[in-house]
Amino acid sequence: MADNTDPLVLFMPSGKRGRFPHGTPILTAGRELGVYIESVCGGRGICGRCQIEIQSGNFAKHGISSSGSSISPPGPKEQRYAKKRELKPGRRLSCSSTIQGDLVVDIPAEVQVNAQVVRKADDGRYIERNPAIHLCYVEVPEPDMHNPLGDFDRLKAALIKDWSNSADGNSNWDDLTIDHHLLTRLQPVLRKGQWKVTAVIHEDKSATHPALIGLYPGFHNEAYGIACDIGSTTIAMHLVSLLSGATIASSGTSNPQIRFGEDLMSRVSWVMMNPDGREAMTTVVRKTLNDLISQVCGEANIVADDIFNMTFVGNPIMHHLFLGIDPTELGVAPFALAVSSAVQIFASELDLQVNPGARVYVLPCIAGHVGADAAAVTLAEGPHRQDELMLLVDVGTNAEIVLGNKERTVAASSPTGPAFEGAEISCGQRAAPGAIERVRINPVTLEPRIRIIGVEKWSDEEGFEEESAIHGITGVCGSGIIEVVAEMYLADIITNDGVIDGKMAKKSDRIIANGRTWSYILWRGTQELTITQTDIRAIQLAKAALYAGIRLLMDKMGIGAIEQIRLAGAFGSFIDPKYAMILGLIPDCELDNVHAVGNAAGVGAKMALLNRNHRREIEDTVRRIEKIETALETDFQQHFVNAMALPNKVEPFPKLQKQIKLPDINTQTATETTANSQPRRRRRTRGS
Amino acid sequence: MADNTDPLVLFMPSGKRGRFPHGTPILTAGRELGVYIESVCGGRGICGRCQIEIQSGNFAKHGISSSGSSISPPGPKEQRYAKKRELKPGRRLSCSSTIQGDLVVDIPAEVQVNAQVVRKADDGRYIERNPAIHLCYVEVPEPDMHNPLGDFDRLKAALIKDWSNSADGNSNWDDLTIDHHLLTRLQPVLRKGQWKVTAVIHEDKSATHPALIGLYPGFHNEAYGIACDIGSTTIAMHLVSLLSGATIASSGTSNPQIRFGEDLMSRVSWVMMNPDGREAMTTVVRKTLNDLISQVCGEANIVADDIFNMTFVGNPIMHHLFLGIDPTELGVAPFALAVSSAVQIFASELDLQVNPGARVYVLPCIAGHVGADAAAVTLAEGPHRQDELMLLVDVGTNAEIVLGNKERTVAASSPTGPAFEGAEISCGQRAAPGAIERVRINPVTLEPRIRIIGVEKWSDEEGFEEESAIHGITGVCGSGIIEVVAEMYLADIITNDGVIDGKMAKKSDRIIANGRTWSYILWRGTQELTITQTDIRAIQLAKAALYAGIRLLMDKMGIGAIEQIRLAGAFGSFIDPKYAMILGLIPDCELDNVHAVGNAAGVGAKMALLNRNHRREIEDTVRRIEKIETALETDFQQHFVNAMALPNKVEPFPKLQKQIKLPDINTQTATETTANSQPRRRRRTRGS
Repeated sequence: MADNTDPLVLFMPSGKRGRFPHGTPILTAGRELGVYIESVCGGRGICGRCQIEIQSGNFAKHGISSSGSSISPPGPKEQRYAKKRELKPGRRLSCSSTIQGDLVVDIPAEVQVNAQVVRKADDGRYIERNPAIHLCYVEVPEPDMHNPLGDFDRLKAALIKDWSNSADGNSNWDDLTIDHHLLTRLQPVLRKGQWKVTAVIHEDKSATHPALIGLYPGFHNEAYGIACDIGSTTIAMHLVSLLSGATIASSGTSNPQIRFGEDLMSRVSWVMMNPDGREAMTTVVRKTLNDLISQVCGEANIVADDIFNMTFVGNPIMHHLFLGIDPTELGVAPFALAVSSAVQIFASELDLQVNPGARVYVLPCIAGHVGADAAAVTLAEGPHRQDELMLLVDVGTNAEIVLGNKERTVAASSPTGPAFEGAEISCGQRAAPGAIERVRINPVTLEPRIRIIGVEKWSDEEGFEEESAIHGITGVCGSGIIEVVAEMYLADIITNDGVIDGKMAKKSDRIIANGRTWSYILWRGTQELTITQTDIRAIQLAKAALYAGIRLLMDKMGIGAIEQIRLAGAFGSFIDPKYAMILGLIPDCELDNVHAVGNAAGVGAKMALLNRNHRREIEDTVRRIEKIETALETDFQQHFVNAMALPNKVEPFPKLQKQIKLPDINTQTATETTANSQPRRRRRTRGS
Repeated sequence: MADNTDPLVLFMPSGKRGRFPHGTPILTAGRELGVYIESVCGGRGICGRCQIEIQSGNFAKHGISSSGSSISPPGPKEQRYAKKRELKPGRRLSCSSTIQGDLVVDIPAEVQVNAQVVRKADDGRYIERNPAIHLCYVEVPEPDMHNPLGDFDRLKAALIKDWSNSADGNSNWDDLTIDHHLLTRLQPVLRKGQWKVTAVIHEDKSATHPALIGLYPGFHNEAYGIACDIGSTTIAMHLVSLLSGATIASSGTSNPQIRFGEDLMSRVSWVMMNPDGREAMTTVVRKTLNDLISQVCGEANIVADDIFNMTFVGNPIMHHLFLGIDPTELGVAPFALAVSSAVQIFASELDLQVNPGARVYVLPCIAGHVGADAAAVTLAEGPHRQDELMLLVDVGTNAEIVLGNKERTVAASSPTGPAFEGAEISCGQRAAPGAIERVRINPVTLEPRIRIIGVEKWSDEEGFEEESAIHGITGVCGSGIIEVVAEMYLADIITNDGVIDGKMAKKSDRIIANGRTWSYILWRGTQELTITQTDIRAIQLAKAALYAGIRLLMDKMGIGAIEQIRLAGAFGSFIDPKYAMILGLIPDCELDNVHAVGNAAGVGAKMALLNRNHRREIEDTVRRIEKIETALETDFQQHFVNAMALPNKVEPFPKLQKQIKLPDINTQTATETTANSQPRRRRRTRGS
């Protein structure tokens, strides 16, 4: 019972605070306040997971008087740990250090305990941890003939005694069950550990009852999880330490379902036409996941048996095929999902080769065409956590669009078709080495400069010819198409209506007649790459669909402008937001507030892996999102027609204009404007 | 909001009562009072499961004024049902009949709906139903693009809306999950049923979260369960309707593990000596269970896919082998069970061929040698439900002994060894046709009369010779051995110390010298069957162990006499309690209060199958039972030595003496005393 004269302790970064009597262990104080501090050994000073740092400085504004000597000096447990396992300067074990005065305590983002583990550069986000998996070291009383409880029953009683209220305030382990695979192996493990074991417990609200899913003899100080984004083109996987939160290995590969169909709808058709089509696609994707699991485990030098939790995201069709559900219903109206809420399942039911007790969490789907990937992007970017309106766009065969803020969120998908992915374009191709990804057209000479995937140099730089010869120059990928069309527009090769202007043929022999329309020769090499009128039409249709979807959501929200735009997914990562705005894919916005967020879906999956509260957060958010079906909205058609034309170069983009001086672009050589306008761009490498 | 002028409704047999406004459906009233009334169709008047009867008569003592016209006349729903499906005279549908005045409502023990179903004579006990399985007919809204919830999510919402509070007061279906096997098959079932389906929901406290485990297109009106007792010798299985409570087929067979070892300890040895011994024994017992499942399904003409719940009982070693747990630890002190509490598991994890969503409940074990079978016997006989002290004895290789009442219960096992099962006896054999099961010895001539299994006649009756020739007279089974030894004692062939008295050789040539001791020739036929001094010693050791165990428990309870005795299991069913008392297997007791209860373990399994409250009851009771380990009790050895002698024929059995005039027995021919002293005996048939 703390009173007002007791020391005040403030925990960062959560900001939770409370008063505790002198001598209270900091771990205890944190837990009473609901601050998640990991501990495997239960305060015995051996796991080193409960590390904290004490901030120094003047915290008068927090009501904190001082900080230096307000913590107990390192005792024997801490000294022993520091000697044996190394403790970074400034770090303390919160189980062994006690409160001696007002304190500001920092929970470090990552506690590194096992030095041998490979560490991958993470995307730098701090994800507060509260995973569904706990490691609990416990000493179990030996069997007693006077009180002949079963081995599991004594283990459970010991866990309840030592741990029940330590993980979080809601734990009630009276309902603790044991997985059957473990029950049959329990007795030898207890005896091998001489009644000292580390229990692996899975506990997640929506599964409701906690379960003992793994057991190690003796003390065990690591457990891993996997976060995975199953895209229709690419599968990305991250191996994460559930105890430190660090990503220790990542890998990705093509989705092997591509051989059944390039885009989603052709895969659904495959299922509809082949009796074992669903099973075949489920099998190949699970096999690939197992290959990736082996790969990340090998890279991090861990065994797959130490993986206890996995989170998955994907669009509805990937979601269904992964889970073994026939996606046929998603191919026709009313596009009914088998399940929209989050799915909790055993990894073994999905044939995933990890610990037999491992649990899988699949994020909820928003609608028939707005999947768990869009939910994950929403979780990662968090429109629902802020006041400012944010637009999330993830472009694939369908664009998944989410728009909202703390108050209200709406979502829809737009039938953009595969043009943005390079399909339906005469010289289009998948993003791969040799594909043109950057284009600049001199507005005076109409001569282009290009850059291809796999080569750092522009085509007018020395050495380009030799370097590009390795792969050849094979086509134009999605981001390249956006750029070439936008540059053609800026160079007046195409008009507002999207017509290639035959008059320009006088200025350059790259403008050539092509039946009754005109084409632009983008590249003359072994292969001649030409942009035709049909190509422009395809891009116009796709961008009109995307813009119309966004417009519809803006109407629903009753707003005329958007404060922040996030472009997710591979396409979003590589298009230049400026060109997207010039073509009118996205509405006008401060260019600084338009960010490509790369694999935000993967980040969302990782958040759900590391913190159960993020699972509840996205479940709740998805429930509250208003789902708009564009096919049912009469306004959508009108918006679509209106959006076919290219935006007026001067008028409708006051913000873009202010930023990059759009009218001047027409006369300057375009190089200067590119480098700094994409603050979060990444280098593209093969297979990413 | 009922007031004092509202009609009073009393539900029988529970005795629950309450006042409800005129016009309240009786189903609603029952549920509000927590009276379990089945309903599959949710009050649509189509399932007929909610049948009740209205008692007539003078219920003034209950405060009930009248009963005749206090119920609404049959409305159109009821008339339609009665016309289409037949309603027994006096039966009403509680969903469609309303309260019009004070009422006494009877919940019939069994509601027969499907006339074609085979009905087996049950043991007549009324088991109040509240099973873990509910069938819930529901109409699901079709997919809606404006509100694109998944098919499961809409089904769940419909179930919550129509059913959530109807099954019992504790249901919270917000946590309802769906089994993965079902999720992958959900969409076609919903469409086949045109959005009208019958959901199968499993809900049991210790599993904590309710789960959708099965789904039928359209209306489905039956679900089955299986209750099974896995004995070391015999496996008994009952197929039960979860909706009516009726046992519709029963079957039994030998435990195929016998080929690995006759008794429990030899099976444990087999596991210890053979690396794949545990697996082999698990496999054969599960295969036999699947054979029995086919058999009962065939007999009842149902499909195994309609079986959704199973309960199992067995001694600790059977329990472990069935669950796939190595029983080695049970073979050596401290006899540690892997798990003592109740086990909840999927039938599929045990390779049982029933519905893939079926759940298994295994009753708790009491101690290392007092298993789930003893728990089931306790549940069936209910010492913990009454004031009078009850002794439960289940004799096998170990005797499992439970003694107690409402206040306090103690349990132990005694190492009786296999003598009571006919092993270690020179002419002993397993109970099978041809085995001597009844013996009377004329105290004057010392000539025996016998009866064998499979033949109704005594050996001195006409036709015995022909009938017994079919099987031959092959040996003496457990109950026969008790009788022959007791009759030899009553005829003074053996002394108080258990010595065969050589002096009696003068009276009959059946007493013959056998080295330095004497033997008694029980039968002269193709085979001579002789009772030796060693046989008598083996019985003395066994009975001393049993009695010492009982005595120890009586000491623990501080009592000198027992009010009721129940003899469970095959041995208990066939021994004559009178003879058991003469030999001193069990303490003195009114003979009318000594009952053989047959397969009480099977009854306990059935109770746990039909009513979740019985699961909680036995879990709680087992927790509270004080477990006594005879090996650790110094008094046990003394009791054992004291119990070696046969009881004085006059002194120590005042109650037995009073009842059957023991001193007179010596002179009368024994026939008269047999028939009526075994009120609950059953006929033995092969394989039972």
